[in-house]
Amino acid sequence: MKPSTAEGTRDFTPDQVLKRNYIFDTIRSVFVKYGYLPIETPAVENLSTLSGKYGEEGDRLLFKILNSGEYLKGISPDDITSKAYKTITPILAKRGLRYDLTVPFARFVVMHQNELTFPFKRYQIQPVWRADRPQKGRYREFYQCDVDVVGSTSLVYEAELVQIYDEVFSKLNLNVVIKFNNRKILAGIAEVAGIPDLMVDMTVAIDKLDKIGVDGVKKEMSGRGIGEAAIAKIIQILEIQSLDELLVAMEASETGKLGIQEVQTLLQYLSVGQQKQEIRFDITLARGLNYYTGCIFEVQAKDVAMGSIGGGGRYDNLTGVFGLKDVSGVGVSFGAERIYDVLEELNLFPKDQSSSLKVLFMAFDDAAHLYAFAALSKLRAAGVNSEIYPDAGKLKKQMKYANDRQVPFVVLVGEEEMNTSLLSFKNMESGTQEKLTIEEIIAKTHTL
Amino acid sequence: MKPSTAEGTRDFTPDQVLKRNYIFDTIRSVFVKYGYLPIETPAVENLSTLSGKYGEEGDRLLFKILNSGEYLKGISPDDITSKAYKTITPILAKRGLRYDLTVPFARFVVMHQNELTFPFKRYQIQPVWRADRPQKGRYREFYQCDVDVVGSTSLVYEAELVQIYDEVFSKLNLNVVIKFNNRKILAGIAEVAGIPDLMVDMTVAIDKLDKIGVDGVKKEMSGRGIGEAAIAKIIQILEIQSLDELLVAMEASETGKLGIQEVQTLLQYLSVGQQKQEIRFDITLARGLNYYTGCIFEVQAKDVAMGSIGGGGRYDNLTGVFGLKDVSGVGVSFGAERIYDVLEELNLFPKDQSSSLKVLFMAFDDAAHLYAFAALSKLRAAGVNSEIYPDAGKLKKQMKYANDRQVPFVVLVGEEEMNTSLLSFKNMESGTQEKLTIEEIIAKTHTL
Repeated sequence: MKPSTAEGTRDFTPDQVLKRNYIFDTIRSVFVKYGYLPIETPAVENLSTLSGKYGEEGDRLLFKILNSGEYLKGISPDDITSKAYKTITPILAKRGLRYDLTVPFARFVVMHQNELTFPFKRYQIQPVWRADRPQKGRYREFYQCDVDVVGSTSLVYEAELVQIYDEVFSKLNLNVVIKFNNRKILAGIAEVAGIPDLMVDMTVAIDKLDKIGVDGVKKEMSGRGIGEAAIAKIIQILEIQSLDELLVAMEASETGKLGIQEVQTLLQYLSVGQQKQEIRFDITLARGLNYYTGCIFEVQAKDVAMGSIGGGGRYDNLTGVFGLKDVSGVGVSFGAERIYDVLEELNLFPKDQSSSLKVLFMAFDDAAHLYAFAALSKLRAAGVNSEIYPDAGKLKKQMKYANDRQVPFVVLVGEEEMNTSLLSFKNMESGTQEKLTIEEIIAKTHTL
Repeated sequence: MKPSTAEGTRDFTPDQVLKRNYIFDTIRSVFVKYGYLPIETPAVENLSTLSGKYGEEGDRLLFKILNSGEYLKGISPDDITSKAYKTITPILAKRGLRYDLTVPFARFVVMHQNELTFPFKRYQIQPVWRADRPQKGRYREFYQCDVDVVGSTSLVYEAELVQIYDEVFSKLNLNVVIKFNNRKILAGIAEVAGIPDLMVDMTVAIDKLDKIGVDGVKKEMSGRGIGEAAIAKIIQILEIQSLDELLVAMEASETGKLGIQEVQTLLQYLSVGQQKQEIRFDITLARGLNYYTGCIFEVQAKDVAMGSIGGGGRYDNLTGVFGLKDVSGVGVSFGAERIYDVLEELNLFPKDQSSSLKVLFMAFDDAAHLYAFAALSKLRAAGVNSEIYPDAGKLKKQMKYANDRQVPFVVLVGEEEMNTSLLSFKNMESGTQEKLTIEEIIAKTHTL
């Protein structure tokens, strides 16, 4: 049989794993520095935990696991004849694969609430699964990379998360703009314009400003049932350039004023920080997910056309669905798959990885092979990434292996080397070769 | 609703993740030093790849994923009435969850054979899933940790893998015995005893020597149809103390002699190595899996009663089932879950992790909070793991958080600290407190 991977899934070769780990390790190192703690949740969850949390479309995209044993029990031939999927599926499958990291995190917080220290700062980097139609850049199995803090309403965490974005992308040598807004301001605009019930329609339209321009936004709002006077008011507010003016325009909305104060507090914290990237308040930023209630964030790469590579915000009721009320949280996520594509396109992956092979030993005959193995053991004991070609002789084959592995140094061992205890140490890039003791090789490879 | 995890699966709290990562990072660092490369394969595989590879019991334990969309197509009500599982299951589910890392690795090698450099040295640390009955220490979702080299028959890799075991367990401060044997020797004994066809029965019996003693082994062999003369011959050989004598006793078996020579070559390599742990040739070691054809390995912890915490061996036909013949390989795996239990029992996890929080800032009022945030940003820029309590005031609450997070140092900021630029730096273990500039705190936390 000719083997294949399941549609929408991928193998990762060593080169790809190293590049992906470069991204994950960079992100993780910043999370840790900011005091966030790792958790892991199982890939397999009860469907009672997952179902109904992602809308109807989400339920459809959940990977469901066929029950073990007599899974047909309780299904009647009539159900089969009538194709009663809504009856049959819950009988066939009690478990499914994790669809995101947010719902399992909420479940985790509720189940472990008595062991956790609040505010609880957690990060989680794990794969998720969605039975989506695969297409370029969209997979059925992919990693998510989330950082959240729950159990506090303090805006210092909003500032901290902006700084985490700033530091991660700076470490990756990527120029980005970190945009933020506040849902309360959007709610305030809708209030001031007299259309509080149409806030979602308004934000959906505003969100498209970049793409369709002011006239397009007006048209979209009109099509969504927002009246002319309200539209004029909304556009007028969107064109305001300063927070102070915005505060005046929002005088009639307590929610709107609170939103602006939150933005001011966030800016105050950031003003004493050490950020390097562009951070921009953007009143038109809306973010799709409706569970956000305060600050919202979105990151875009500057030197390449790619959608958002990160986003997040504050939510007020993450754990309510599992029975734990009034837990406010704020979090952001990193779009690791897109960041990979951006770094690849801009050629920003580091050439040398600390995990790469440094030295390869080669031997001319079996006696030399054993001698070389002893020298190799010393080099490894000194902590140098190194190995030996498995067979003695045939230098051409060994050199091909050295080139394929892109090893920077080769040590050749034959009769002369054994007699003199001086090994031939070859620099594969320059082609130069010198005779060194194993102790000299250890010293040399440690400093190179 | 009261949330729960699926049976046989686990959440990992921060403390557990850090301990697990300590094990995985230690293992990974040794793999890398020995020149092994990481690969990753998807959790979801086509069932055509997995089915039939793990025996009938294995097929039953595969987690199968219900197809998306109209999954009932092709199933007749009659199939349901007659509960024709063997007909229905392959229609309902085309994909399943990875059951081990070996079969996906074989698939990977076959699919990527033209991109890989042989001998291909790979490691893989990923979860696997088995629909087993959960019990103490046995889970439905657990990690495997494999290291293999394929495309060479050189015994230098057997030596290298023993050294990897030696180094990993030494780094974990765990005393182990690394036992090895060779399947060819077991085959040779069966040949010399005139029962080549009963080799498996013989090894099953020999494998139990530790538990049931010599008389028990004799009885077991007799019960499995091995004659008295053969049993006497087998026991006689098992009692031989030296490889030279064994070579004489094995004179009539080419396979047996080859096995002894392989053991001698392995010992020769190890004799010039730097191992620290006990390494023992054990002619009674058999290992269950029948695909091993050469050297076999097993590791046991010395200071605690626990089954094997590692094992492996050489196999001659890993990729044959996917159409690539004659690829010899050798590999070992680490039983990460059991290693965790052993380290826990012996209290061998390190107290301090480099990833833990070093400094917590606390403020007496809002102005001090902003001042402290600025100082914190400098400390973080200097690379120190640190954070700030989110709200000013209420010192008792802040100190409780500091204790719960087990942070070694606390920085207190109030009006006096702001006026003097000298922050109160408190050592939480000793209770001592001193006034330091933020620069002095940076210098101090870097050296502590």
